[in-house]
Amino acid sequence: MAFEVTIGLCQIKVTDDIKENCKKAGEMIAQAYDEGCMIAVLPEMFCCPYDISLFNKYAQPEGRGEVYDFLASSAEKYKMVLIGGSVPEKAYNGALYNTCQVFGENGNLLGKHRKIHLFDVDIKDGISFHESEVLTAGNTITVINTNIINVGIGICYDVRFPELSRAMVLGGAQLLVFPGAFNHITGPLHWELLMRARALDNQVYVAGVAPALNPDSSYKSHGHSLLADPWGQVVFSAESDEVFLSGILKMNEVYRVRNEIPVLRQRRPKLYGKSN
Amino acid sequence: MAFEVTIGLCQIKVTDDIKENCKKAGEMIAQAYDEGCMIAVLPEMFCCPYDISLFNKYAQPEGRGEVYDFLASSAEKYKMVLIGGSVPEKAYNGALYNTCQVFGENGNLLGKHRKIHLFDVDIKDGISFHESEVLTAGNTITVINTNIINVGIGICYDVRFPELSRAMVLGGAQLLVFPGAFNHITGPLHWELLMRARALDNQVYVAGVAPALNPDSSYKSHGHSLLADPWGQVVFSAESDEVFLSGILKMNEVYRVRNEIPVLRQRRPKLYGKSN
Repeated sequence: MAFEVTIGLCQIKVTDDIKENCKKAGEMIAQAYDEGCMIAVLPEMFCCPYDISLFNKYAQPEGRGEVYDFLASSAEKYKMVLIGGSVPEKAYNGALYNTCQVFGENGNLLGKHRKIHLFDVDIKDGISFHESEVLTAGNTITVINTNIINVGIGICYDVRFPELSRAMVLGGAQLLVFPGAFNHITGPLHWELLMRARALDNQVYVAGVAPALNPDSSYKSHGHSLLADPWGQVVFSAESDEVFLSGILKMNEVYRVRNEIPVLRQRRPKLYGKSN
Repeated sequence: MAFEVTIGLCQIKVTDDIKENCKKAGEMIAQAYDEGCMIAVLPEMFCCPYDISLFNKYAQPEGRGEVYDFLASSAEKYKMVLIGGSVPEKAYNGALYNTCQVFGENGNLLGKHRKIHLFDVDIKDGISFHESEVLTAGNTITVINTNIINVGIGICYDVRFPELSRAMVLGGAQLLVFPGAFNHITGPLHWELLMRARALDNQVYVAGVAPALNPDSSYKSHGHSLLADPWGQVVFSAESDEVFLSGILKMNEVYRVRNEIPVLRQRRPKLYGKSN
């Protein structure tokens, strides 16, 4: 019997109002439920503008708070695995992280990922952004056993580092999820290419979930939430507008591809060097 | 002053005649010279059909022989760095390798790469190929100082392993070259995607050079030799027919991209794990 998992990607248009953002996310999670999804995914910083000057203002306390409660209760209400995009998380230690929290069907926190690679770039005539001015980088690779499948979580810029996706898959991930928010410069150039590359390299499904473009926002999100399959092909992709998309992960396809082109068994790790 | 390197890609139609193949390669190398190329690249197994049952028949002795002499003399004649695609190399130890030999402007052998990851696949209703039935895998990562730039060499299937390209770039490679021969199944699916992915991941130029499609051959080469730039974009690409292509590596672009999106400095190698 084929093992299939239905997944929903919620490309919501994020505003500067936490309550409004959670309300919109809740509507799409309800839609995911209506369409039979077992997993739903929200975008990076789905509760607040993607703006380093505002992350402290919108910060959510570690393990509790308005957004935490919304996510936990939504997962429980719909008996769904909910991959909660990300929030600015104010940790017990006082540091601020870009954190993805994952909840199980009982509303319990299954695990979380703190963005490992912070987005610090200076593209000439393009965009400058320095998350490290306000955020602290996470130090843990995250693979979460959801009881449905094992999900590896990265956040946005994390996708640029092939080592991380490889480590997640070697750690048992059967699906990689990247809440992200590429912009109008790097989005058209790299978003789809990177998601497809991580899928093909690791012969795994990859879901990238971004906020919709909000013309009123200072940060212009590329959107284009997508699902890539273990052949590196795009199963479906959004444009920049607000939209909910759902599709099926055919897990047998993962095993078929891995048997036909067995790269994961054919690796030569002893040759690659320590620094890699 | 901008540092620029002109490179020529020789997509020759390989036949079952070594002399004919070298003659054709020689014509394209001459064309590369006429167009001012400092580096020319030949395809994987440019001297013989890509057929495991024939590799022994066409085997070239290590460090000498008809094809070796042709490559050395061509490099010397045109004062060019010649990346000699690959040949079935019969080593001193008796093993048969899929080997890329690189010659300098004086006709001297600068180095060679023996394919590390052998092409062993079984795609249902597609293609089965098992290089390991006759070939031995190389055990060394190859970065060659050509006096122009440092060139990392992989062969075909080697491109599927992001660890190898990363290791070459961390080892100083400023250009990655993959003589390859993807087929009519994996070519349209993966050839361009993989070359672009390796270029983007490592912010480096990547040249993939394949034989042209020979309708009379049992193995249907995809062709599509291409150059990808440090942004992961295709600079130019062939179709499947026999063709010579040349273009410019703008080395300043490599440094610009690496400063604007400094992923190579932002890696977190301590987190990725030993097996990676």
